[in-house]
Amino acid sequence: MGKHMAANIQKKGYPLVVFDVNKMAIDELVAKGATAASSLPDLATQCTHILTMLPGGPQVQEVYTNNKTGLLNHAKNNTIIIDSSTIEPFLSRDIAKMAKDKNIEFLDAPVSGGVGGAEKGTLTFMVGGNIEKGKQLLEAMGSNVVHCGDNGSGLCVKICNNMLLAISMIGTAEAMNLAIKLGLDPKIFAKIMNMSSGRCWSSDTYNPVPGVMPTAPANRDYEQGFATALMTKDLGLAQSVSTQTGAPTPLGSLSHQIYRVMMAHGLQNKDFSIVYKFLSEN
Amino acid sequence: MGKHMAANIQKKGYPLVVFDVNKMAIDELVAKGATAASSLPDLATQCTHILTMLPGGPQVQEVYTNNKTGLLNHAKNNTIIIDSSTIEPFLSRDIAKMAKDKNIEFLDAPVSGGVGGAEKGTLTFMVGGNIEKGKQLLEAMGSNVVHCGDNGSGLCVKICNNMLLAISMIGTAEAMNLAIKLGLDPKIFAKIMNMSSGRCWSSDTYNPVPGVMPTAPANRDYEQGFATALMTKDLGLAQSVSTQTGAPTPLGSLSHQIYRVMMAHGLQNKDFSIVYKFLSEN
Amino acid sequence: MGKHMAANIQKKGYPLVVFDVNKMAIDELVAKGATAASSLPDLATQCTHILTMLPGGPQVQEVYTNNKTGLLNHAKNNTIIIDSSTIEPFLSRDIAKMAKDKNIEFLDAPVSGGVGGAEKGTLTFMVGGNIEKGKQLLEAMGSNVVHCGDNGSGLCVKICNNMLLAISMIGTAEAMNLAIKLGLDPKIFAKIMNMSSGRCWSSDTYNPVPGVMPTAPANRDYEQGFATALMTKDLGLAQSVSTQTGAPTPLGSLSHQIYRVMMAHGLQNKDFSIVYKFLSEN
Amino acid sequence: MGKHMAANIQKKGYPLVVFDVNKMAIDELVAKGATAASSLPDLATQCTHILTMLPGGPQVQEVYTNNKTGLLNHAKNNTIIIDSSTIEPFLSRDIAKMAKDKNIEFLDAPVSGGVGGAEKGTLTFMVGGNIEKGKQLLEAMGSNVVHCGDNGSGLCVKICNNMLLAISMIGTAEAMNLAIKLGLDPKIFAKIMNMSSGRCWSSDTYNPVPGVMPTAPANRDYEQGFATALMTKDLGLAQSVSTQTGAPTPLGSLSHQIYRVMMAHGLQNKDFSIVYKFLSEN
Repeated sequence: MGKHMAANIQKKGYPLVVFDVNKMAIDELVAKGATAASSLPDLATQCTHILTMLPGGPQVQEVYTNNKTGLLNHAKNNTIIIDSSTIEPFLSRDIAKMAKDKNIEFLDAPVSGGVGGAEKGTLTFMVGGNIEKGKQLLEAMGSNVVHCGDNGSGLCVKICNNMLLAISMIGTAEAMNLAIKLGLDPKIFAKIMNMSSGRCWSSDTYNPVPGVMPTAPANRDYEQGFATALMTKDLGLAQSVSTQTGAPTPLGSLSHQIYRVMMAHGLQNKDFSIVYKFLSEN
Repeated sequence: MGKHMAANIQKKGYPLVVFDVNKMAIDELVAKGATAASSLPDLATQCTHILTMLPGGPQVQEVYTNNKTGLLNHAKNNTIIIDSSTIEPFLSRDIAKMAKDKNIEFLDAPVSGGVGGAEKGTLTFMVGGNIEKGKQLLEAMGSNVVHCGDNGSGLCVKICNNMLLAISMIGTAEAMNLAIKLGLDPKIFAKIMNMSSGRCWSSDTYNPVPGVMPTAPANRDYEQGFATALMTKDLGLAQSVSTQTGAPTPLGSLSHQIYRVMMAHGLQNKDFSIVYKFLSEN
Repeated sequence: MGKHMAANIQKKGYPLVVFDVNKMAIDELVAKGATAASSLPDLATQCTHILTMLPGGPQVQEVYTNNKTGLLNHAKNNTIIIDSSTIEPFLSRDIAKMAKDKNIEFLDAPVSGGVGGAEKGTLTFMVGGNIEKGKQLLEAMGSNVVHCGDNGSGLCVKICNNMLLAISMIGTAEAMNLAIKLGLDPKIFAKIMNMSSGRCWSSDTYNPVPGVMPTAPANRDYEQGFATALMTKDLGLAQSVSTQTGAPTPLGSLSHQIYRVMMAHGLQNKDFSIVYKFLSEN
Repeated sequence: MGKHMAANIQKKGYPLVVFDVNKMAIDELVAKGATAASSLPDLATQCTHILTMLPGGPQVQEVYTNNKTGLLNHAKNNTIIIDSSTIEPFLSRDIAKMAKDKNIEFLDAPVSGGVGGAEKGTLTFMVGGNIEKGKQLLEAMGSNVVHCGDNGSGLCVKICNNMLLAISMIGTAEAMNLAIKLGLDPKIFAKIMNMSSGRCWSSDTYNPVPGVMPTAPANRDYEQGFATALMTKDLGLAQSVSTQTGAPTPLGSLSHQIYRVMMAHGLQNKDFSIVYKFLSEN
């Protein structure tokens, strides 16, 4: 994902310095004219803007705050940092605070839109912090750059939105399956529901039942969508912050569990709408 | 509700014969020109079309199939019957079958739109059975008459739709509350989510958080909406048919339980979006 | 099951008249000296005590209240009827009332102990109604005859007990699986928990993890126990009565759903403790 | 709690050095002959055995690993440390590893038994790590010292046990409430269930319905038991470790949510069996 994002920055004519633990990812970009940094500190000293895309909180913490190699220990004054990893907002806020103390601007800018959106440059960025500092760069990679509030807000919006997405996807799967078991035609039922109060993105744009919407992952055996493993990760973050804030989330929590059981049944790489098949198969 | 629906039929100029166990409801309509029937059999023998709106399955069974007074035992050949009660689809199908055997056309046509819609004549009817037979009459009372399929389909659609509605309402309440606890501005969060994959009718049209949408019941102390007691009843029907068909509905079932706990806490007459307050209050 | 129960009555020397839609079941008992009835009315006129064991409510209603062949229409004055079917207590109470009006004593006496207990005559009967009338006969088939209260109480106790059983079985499966994933030895963990506040029948007598308790179904591939399909049926009854009484049962309801998903995954004939495998497999 | 535990050590004749951010707690013990340490480093240099009881993970991390004042930086070679705080097992394991590198023995030994047990010296300690090193001291404070396995195991056992405890308590509350709503006598129902497969510690020792068991908190308005807030905290830890290990815990997760809603409704200081009242009240 990071590779595609970097390629779009390059395409827009920005000079690019790259680093990754995976050498292959770098080589491709270097072949197109990027400079390879030899280490994180090396990268930090060469750049005025830094963008990271990492798998989770521990990696973000390591990359930014490691006593020896952490970016915050080597970035120049007034560097602008954008972290697009999906991690706990509290961690992101802590790092933003440390950055501010060192005269560094840190933004959280998690994305939606998947690998496809990264490649086409049509990602949506949900941004927390001083968005003006990062807007130009983000617009090189996405078609939608939304300001959500202070540091951490981008992550909060993404996590809360995805929790509701999971809930309404499972709810849609349940309602569609029940309707079918009751003898309704799935297309007719979906059409009526989508004009009614049951309407949601999962029912009217991404319907989980094969044959109802030609463009939805349900029609390509639940491939090439938003992976169950990623949804499960986001639901885990939602549970973590709801425990920390004391906000009850009964359906969010049960949705997390359902996706966890689906992981245990080997569905991690399938689109998350496969919950329809998981609930209905026999 | 039935009173308002009858008044609209009257307004359109149809001759009207009325019957209700509650005398008062009749008097008002009689004052405007309707004829009062002295009993169900009396009503049946006077009418070519019969419309009923009853609280639940046992009343529908009694009114139609009672050995002595049941409408099916007294209605004339080719009578067209429309039942707008929300009951189990299987019961409605059974009655439709009995009706057919007696040359009577029976339609299920549950409504959405509430008492307000009944008064203004803007109800939505979800119709199962031979819709052509009842369309004209239904259009006298509602602005939206949707054909769902064979007998019972109208009820199936209503029950499945409302199950998803409850799920997405609770999900919206959870997501909004979590976002607020995390420090987000509820209006900004709702706006972004409503352009994203978390979007649903409960978030973009009927938001449960006071101050987010001026027209939603949340802004009038959750009064004059769709009562928690009615939603709980519909969720009970959803659970009943999902048990009978073997369709798993984990979120539908948990939503039913949450509304049941809210009933036990005295919220039966409040709009069902009060789940936001129930989950967040402290 | 009924066959084994009848055989035990025969063994104790009681004269036996039998009827079943399945001829084979009758033949075996007739070979051992029982009289075959030609129909339900034929059976009713020959007996002073009648015992039934039927799959569900509709069959019980049919067998007892059918206008032509129903047992209540043919049983002699002062007949004592014991129904051991697991059905809705409200239906059982209705039938008991009808029976009383005809001078017939009706008891509900659902069983626990499975096919094995039926064969060995070690069933437990939970009895609602005038237990003195049926005690002698029940003791011919079971080792434990417990009076629960008025008509229907036997069923209420069975349904409520089994709901808690399902909840604690799933809870045990979750706790054992989590403990194992955390690196604990399952036998040591079970031993400590069984001396502590987590202790329950599912953990200390019927542990769902293979290798922890030699006699539990977990050690014979979850065969020959209490089938998932039967537990699912009982949980459906629990949900039905909890909806009717307005009693919230969030964990009972979620347990029902989990067993329903397991049914959809083909586990209906396995012992209900297989929920451990369902949740943990990967 | 720590105060009572310290007092029992003193009673057994061990010399005692104490430290607390709350001066008052120290004064009382000093009056009875204990020495007050002026700081954590001061305490560390005076003791061969150290015992801590802290509210949560962040405090434990601070007390042990703070660069300047952390106990691990000041404790002498071969010091034996017992931490009785209830925290994440992964954190405890990390600290144990750091301790080992400094030739310090670290044990986790969370307790059950409450303030009452701490006072009477009848606590149960669930111990992870080299139990022989701490046994004598633990037996001065508790009547039950159980070895659970390697470092962190004591915490794992406590967290898993308490998750099942919460599940079976809510399940018992649901079953009892449903039974009562169905017309059963609560004492008779509890008695039968406690001889059957629904039996659990929550039903046979700590029944949540007033009037069923004279010694249970239900009979003293749910005062002086295991507080809802503490159970909620333990369920949060259970969810955290189940997310980290990928173990699905649907009922554990829903139980956590139910206790969270109860917290939002002001029940944090009541015994956790008050879930019965929360579910049944009307």
